[in-house]
Order: sequence, then structure tokens, then C-alpha cells
Amino acid sequence: MTRIIMHGCNGKMGQVISGIVANDPETSIVAGIDISDHMDNPYPVYTRIEDLDVDGDVIIDFSIASAVPTVLNYAKSRKIPLVLCTTGLTEEQIATVNEASKEIAILLSANMSLGVNLLLNLVKKAAKTLTGANFDIEIVEKHHNQKIDAPSGTALAFADSINESLNHEYTYNYDRSTSRVKREGQEIGIHAVRGGTIVGDHAIIFAGQDEVVELHHSALSKDIFAVGAVNAAKFLSQKCQGMYDMQNVIENY
Amino acid sequence: MTRIIMHGCNGKMGQVISGIVANDPETSIVAGIDISDHMDNPYPVYTRIEDLDVDGDVIIDFSIASAVPTVLNYAKSRKIPLVLCTTGLTEEQIATVNEASKEIAILLSANMSLGVNLLLNLVKKAAKTLTGANFDIEIVEKHHNQKIDAPSGTALAFADSINESLNHEYTYNYDRSTSRVKREGQEIGIHAVRGGTIVGDHAIIFAGQDEVVELHHSALSKDIFAVGAVNAAKFLSQKCQGMYDMQNVIENY
Amino acid sequence: MTRIIMHGCNGKMGQVISGIVANDPETSIVAGIDISDHMDNPYPVYTRIEDLDVDGDVIIDFSIASAVPTVLNYAKSRKIPLVLCTTGLTEEQIATVNEASKEIAILLSANMSLGVNLLLNLVKKAAKTLTGANFDIEIVEKHHNQKIDAPSGTALAFADSINESLNHEYTYNYDRSTSRVKREGQEIGIHAVRGGTIVGDHAIIFAGQDEVVELHHSALSKDIFAVGAVNAAKFLSQKCQGMYDMQNVIENY
Amino acid sequence: MTRIIMHGCNGKMGQVISGIVANDPETSIVAGIDISDHMDNPYPVYTRIEDLDVDGDVIIDFSIASAVPTVLNYAKSRKIPLVLCTTGLTEEQIATVNEASKEIAILLSANMSLGVNLLLNLVKKAAKTLTGANFDIEIVEKHHNQKIDAPSGTALAFADSINESLNHEYTYNYDRSTSRVKREGQEIGIHAVRGGTIVGDHAIIFAGQDEVVELHHSALSKDIFAVGAVNAAKFLSQKCQGMYDMQNVIENY
Repeated sequence: MTRIIMHGCNGKMGQVISGIVANDPETSIVAGIDISDHMDNPYPVYTRIEDLDVDGDVIIDFSIASAVPTVLNYAKSRKIPLVLCTTGLTEEQIATVNEASKEIAILLSANMSLGVNLLLNLVKKAAKTLTGANFDIEIVEKHHNQKIDAPSGTALAFADSINESLNHEYTYNYDRSTSRVKREGQEIGIHAVRGGTIVGDHAIIFAGQDEVVELHHSALSKDIFAVGAVNAAKFLSQKCQGMYDMQNVIENY
Repeated sequence: MTRIIMHGCNGKMGQVISGIVANDPETSIVAGIDISDHMDNPYPVYTRIEDLDVDGDVIIDFSIASAVPTVLNYAKSRKIPLVLCTTGLTEEQIATVNEASKEIAILLSANMSLGVNLLLNLVKKAAKTLTGANFDIEIVEKHHNQKIDAPSGTALAFADSINESLNHEYTYNYDRSTSRVKREGQEIGIHAVRGGTIVGDHAIIFAGQDEVVELHHSALSKDIFAVGAVNAAKFLSQKCQGMYDMQNVIENY
Repeated sequence: MTRIIMHGCNGKMGQVISGIVANDPETSIVAGIDISDHMDNPYPVYTRIEDLDVDGDVIIDFSIASAVPTVLNYAKSRKIPLVLCTTGLTEEQIATVNEASKEIAILLSANMSLGVNLLLNLVKKAAKTLTGANFDIEIVEKHHNQKIDAPSGTALAFADSINESLNHEYTYNYDRSTSRVKREGQEIGIHAVRGGTIVGDHAIIFAGQDEVVELHHSALSKDIFAVGAVNAAKFLSQKCQGMYDMQNVIENY
Repeated sequence: MTRIIMHGCNGKMGQVISGIVANDPETSIVAGIDISDHMDNPYPVYTRIEDLDVDGDVIIDFSIASAVPTVLNYAKSRKIPLVLCTTGLTEEQIATVNEASKEIAILLSANMSLGVNLLLNLVKKAAKTLTGANFDIEIVEKHHNQKIDAPSGTALAFADSINESLNHEYTYNYDRSTSRVKREGQEIGIHAVRGGTIVGDHAIIFAGQDEVVELHHSALSKDIFAVGAVNAAKFLSQKCQGMYDMQNVIENY
């Protein structure tokens, strides 16, 4: 049984995690922290983490960047591993996180989804194997019509993961409509489809002579980040000091 | 039984059509014409169409643009319907074709595939219905890595067909990576994936609130143009003078 | 502006519809009815429809089968069109609905989704066109792992819609693993994939010689039934007595 | 430069391999063997392998089962590695092959496609990672309407590969239409779509809470087996005695 301290328990993600844990016999939330304390939770909720006096095996943080130093100090002082899901940290904050990882186990990942992180790993193997046989690589991502960045950070993470396994020899191509030339061998085409309320689809396509291999991830809701956080918490609760990411969680399976 | 005269019978497409007709009890090839006469065919082959003295119900032409005037004259003189599959006609040649259609039935289509032409029709209905509920429209096409134009002519034909049904109020967007803005409602995103030996895939995506409708066509070989030509021949053999296209063939089913 | 009376306003679907209407300048909810009255709504809520004294252009009903007679009587007495989304009606109740449709406009549909209903229409055209060229038809549906019926009602609705356009000459095949024979031409293969929390995917596949046409619908949440209900309400508010379904709404676009 | 001896050079696959090698600077065919010697080849062709007197680094065999003993003897006598692509070997013949592998390197694989073999490897990793988070596994395969076995051997190979990584605890389910029950956790649903001339598609679906991971392979022609054979030949030409399969080729990339 992994005992979780949920920092940001009354936020959207905190509540989703509460629901997952309620149905998971292997985890429980022993305490929550949230500056807003208006919700019914089946565990005690504190507005200040300093007031917390229950034992926990791991902290999950889904709060805001400005609250990260406080949770970091608390984790260090109690020697509790920390799954850090809050995004938008400054470089200075990340440096502090790295410093803290010399004392406690910290997991920090760009995307908490289990499926995305699995594929970030599998595309490396696929790229190494298939480019040897001259397969071309293309990425098509799809998101809702309110998203302003294109391509998605996750699509770029896939491209970078592939490129890393190919000695960074590939360039990225976002638009082929402006020139009439054949495809370059060492490029990754990246395409950003936008429409409706699509939560997030990513297809990584390897096209060779008369065969196509496609690795595909589809998200139905952002709850997948919560599922990933709980899995990460189980993993990290048993770990010594150091920096971890979701790749380590996956290798552990 | 539709009796076909096959103009360009020893070319790649002529031979594919010969194979299709051999297995189709509803059609037969009564004569072929080809300047190169080195192949075994189960029908008489002439090097000059003028020497032809067999009765046919329809001519299929899969030759070269420079041979089109000759076949056009023959079709007019004998009053035989003509399925014109040869591409790359000049504007002047197309004018001659239009003129000839006052005397005989001529079918001319940008893409002879039955499936593509069906979808060119269905996307109009889908666009009219779904844009009324604020669905966004995107097209993703995939072709082999030797193709130099992007997007494909067929992808543009889909976009134009949709736009026609929407009073031409939509613009086309080929690249979202250069600006950080939300999607415009009245645009069609068009994406050209290139890789391997992909013959031709087209996905027309309508994405709305919590639902996505996708119409998809996938070609396994260029033989589909031959299948379409035979279907067009059956259709056109019964028609009076006038210009026809594959949409008319489909409506006829 | 269509003025909606929302029957079952505090149920899950009633609340989703309230949210949609709040963002739609063409509709408003003028009153809600619900036996449970514990929610904040931006419109007056009554526990008994008989107490209702506001003017409305159309009623949407998302309640329970046992409440249908009451709403039916009210709609008849006030001559207000009724979008009936409640499922599980008995044959006797359906007979009453049909009888009532002689006096008022009633819309009743197995699936309220706009996309599904559009495709139920498009597959007919596709089937008629493509089976003429010997295309084979297969349906693959995907749903979550808690669903006990297989295939889904919507998959069967697609098969039936296709079969209707093909003179009911096709049989359905749910399993090919038990015999070693070639595919029958006049059959529709239907496959039920079950896994995770998939809300509902339906692919209708037409496979011919070297080309495949696929019509695909994907649901991200059950909210699509609410979107469909609001569209149906706009449509029905202008209609005279008679029975309508979502096909009529689509034809109207 | 890998010097290939092509056994069965005038068969369909032998000719495809000849074409691939002609465009590959890293390989050449130094001799072919075929009982039918009616084709133009850019290399000497022998009707009996015993008459062969050229040096080669590896033999590719794409012939018939009854010719395998002869090629096996030749390979043993000359100590040349053998890529054995011929299918339908009897158990007795396979025993002879295993025996021969004590003297020479032999590669034998159920499916020679690079993409399929890569995915046979990746699905193991995916299954181990995702079933730990309660993802469900389903396989959908699509083939042409002349195929009599269902599901395909390759679909079963995927299921077996997954099951091997899951301690063989999963059962296979081919049909859900005959019972009304929720999905079992430890089962793999396998679905055989049949239609048109589809060469071979395989989708391995992992569906979890709000996310779906899909690994997909699509074949455009059987030429992919030839591509795989050439890659296998390059690999095997450098190997000592022993049994190898395409998994070893992939690990080598």
C-alpha cells in the first residue's frame, strides 16, 4: 500500500487522482493540501503543508509553479519522494529541483501519460531499425481548435526522441506546399491537425518500400496525466535520491 | 455485354483493363489499338485506329495527349462514346473535346477511381450538415516519397468540392507552425505526408464537439483507375452526346 | 431564438444541454423540470410540469421512461413540439407517442449524435455505389470494457441501414474463426472491439479491388447526444405535427 | 558488398529480389538457380545448384519445400549461410534444417517483413508496460476476400508474442456476439476483417483508462518479404553456424 500526500488535492487533477486512488487497493491518500478547502474529501485536508503531521510514502504535486518551493522544502525536510507534475517551472526553479534531487527522489516529466511515455521509448527502437532500411518518418498530431501552439510539445518530443536515436541527423519539415521537390531522406515531416474538441492524438508513421509501420496514441481526456501520476507515485515511493522521469517508471514494468 | 475498343491497349493501364475485362462477363474488348504491337492479347490489335473495322459500343482511351485528336476524330466519325482517361491535355485540346461532346458522349475526369469520386460527392453532404454544427474540416493526404507536388491534386479536389458546397467561403491552410493563433473557423487545413511507396491515402476529417467524422480513401495500386474506366465504359455506352464525368457514373448506381 | 423547456434539467444530460445552450445565441432555456431540485440553474425549475406557465417553442425530454406520459400530455395540451431523447420506452409507450404525433411534432431517434446520423445516411449511398463494383462491407466498432452487448446497437443500425439500401440481401457475420472458407460476397462482417474506456468508435469499411473506402465516427463523450438534442430542438420548433427523426434534421442542413 | 546466390531466381519473389538488389549498392546476385530458365537476368542462371561454381557469401531460397533438401546440402558442403524463405516445410524437413544449423548459419522466419518483425518485438514491451496499468489488448487484422484462414497466422503470431511476455496467462476471444458479459481482463480479442484485395493490415490495440495505444502494420504488396530477405542476407552473410530468425536481424540494427 503506497500512502500518498496529495498537494493540490482540490484542483481538477487532484480530484481526478482522488477518484483513481479510491478505486485502487494498492494506494491511499493519507492527506491533502490545498489553499482552497471547500470540497468533501475522504482524507484530511490542510491549507498549509507545514501543518501536515501524517506519515506518507510519496508526495504528488499538481499545483502551481509558485507553490513548488514550499512543497520541495517539505519533501526534503521529511525525506519523502516527490512526483512533480506541475508545469511551467522557471529555469531557476528547475535548478532548485535538481539540487533537491541530491537528497530525495524526484520525478519530473514533460508528459505524465503512460502511453505517450511508452511510445517515446518504442519510437527510438523503431527509428533505428527502420531507417536502416530507408523508411521515411512523419508525425501527424491532432488537437482541439483552441490550441495555439503547433506542432504540439508532445509531437516535438516524439521527433526529438527519434532524432536522438538517429544521431541528431534529421531536420523537421512543417510544410511541403511551398516547394516542388522530392522528399529529403533525412527529414521528419510534422503535421498539426486542429479541430473540434480533440484531446490529443499522435501518429508516428514509418513508411518504407511497400509497408508502413505506425505507432499511435490517442487521449480521451486529460485524466491520463492523473493515472500516470499515481503509477509514478507507486514507483517513486521505493526509490532513493535522484532525478527520475516517466521513462524510468516504464522500464520498471 | 458492353463491347470495348481499347485505345492504348499495350500500355500499363491498357493491360490492366484487359485483365479486368477478361474476368468480367458484362464486358469484352473487341479490338485494341497501340503503336507498339508486341504483346499477346485475346483480341485483334491495330497500330492505326483508322484501320479498325469492328463494331464497338464504347472506346476507352489510355494513351498520350498527342494521340487524343486521332481517337476523337474516329469516335466522332463512328458516333461511339469515348471514355477519355489520358491526362495532360492542353487547354486547346480540352476545347476540342468539349466541341466533340456536342456530337458524341465523352467522359473526362481528373481521377478515375470509383472510391475517390464517391467521396468527392459524400464530402459535400457531410460539409453542409456538419459545418452547420461548427465542425472543423481538415484533410490529411499521404503519398510516396517521389511525389513532387504537395498537396496532391486529389486533396485539392476534395477541398474544392467541400468549398463549393460552402459557398466558397473557406480558405486553405497548409502550415500552422509559423504563427501562434487559434484555428480560424472557416478554413480547411491540408497536410501532405510523404513516405515510402504509399500509393495514395486521403482522409477528410470533420471534428466537432466531442465527435469526429472521418471519410477515408486508400489506394493499393493505380489499377483502381482501370477499374473506374471499365465502370465508366459500361455507363457511357448507353449515353447520348454530352460531357460526363465520374460523378455521373456514381449517381447512376 | 428557440425557447427550450428542458424536461429532466438536473440529470446528467440536462446539465450538459444547459451548458451548450448557455453558449449558443440561437437558443435559450426558459424553464426546467426535474423532481430533484438541488442545482443552480440560470432558469426557473419546476418539480411538476403541470405547474409550468412560461411559453416555450419546444420541449427536450431527457428523463426516464415512466415520466414520458406526463410530458407527452403536457406537450399535446399546449401544442408544443417534443424532442424525446429518453430511451427504454415500452412498445405501448411508443404506440402512445405515435398517436400523439398526430397532434404535435415529435422527434424520436435511436442515437441523437449528429455525426452518427449523418453517416447512417452516407453509408446507404456508399453501399449502393460500391457494391455495384463488388466492394465488400465490414464494420468494426470499439467500446469500453464494461459494455455487455456486442455488437453495439449503433453498429447494427449501420448494418441495417446498409442492408436496407441493398434490398435486405446481405447477412451478418460475427466470427470467421470457426470455418475455413472464402468470404461470401453478400455478407457484412461485424466486429466488436472492447477495451479501456473507449466511448464509441464505428468504422464502416468498403473494400474493393485495390481501393478501400472507410467512413468513421469517433465519440469523445456522451455529450454528443446533448449537442444533437439541441440541434433537433431548433429544427423541430418550426415543425407541424408528425413523427420525425435525426435523419430529418440532417436533411434540413 | 554481399554476394547473393538466388535459389528460385525466376519465381515471383526471386524476381522481386533481383530488382531490389539491382538498386542496392551493398548487394549483388552472383548466380541464380531455377528449374525454369526462360527469363532475362543480369546474372548466370543454372537449372541445377550442383553445377554452380561461383563464390557467394549467402544463399537466399524462395523456392518450394521439395527443393529445400538440395539447397541445404549445397549450403552445408560449401559452408555458405542460408536465408530460408520457402514455407510449408514438414516437421521432418525442419528437423533437417535444425541439424544443418550445427554446421552453417540458417535464418528461418514465419514472416520475412521487417515491419512485422519489428512490431512482434515492440508489442512485448508494450504489453508488459500497459497491462500493469490494466490496459486491454485487442488485435484487428484485415486481408483480401480470398483468404480462407481466419485469423491470419501473423495475427496469431502477434497474440502469441504478447502472451509470451505475459506468462501465457491470456486467452483469445474471436467472437463476442454470442454472450452478454463484460470483457475478461486477461483476454486478447482477435478480429478478422476480410474484403477486396487488402494485402495485409494488422492493428494491435492497447486500451486503458482514457488513452489508447495502437501499433499498426500495413503491407502494400508481398514484395516486403523480398526486402526482408535481402536484409536478412546482409545480416546472415557475416554469421557463424546456428539458427537465426528476423528478430536477430532487427536486434542488429
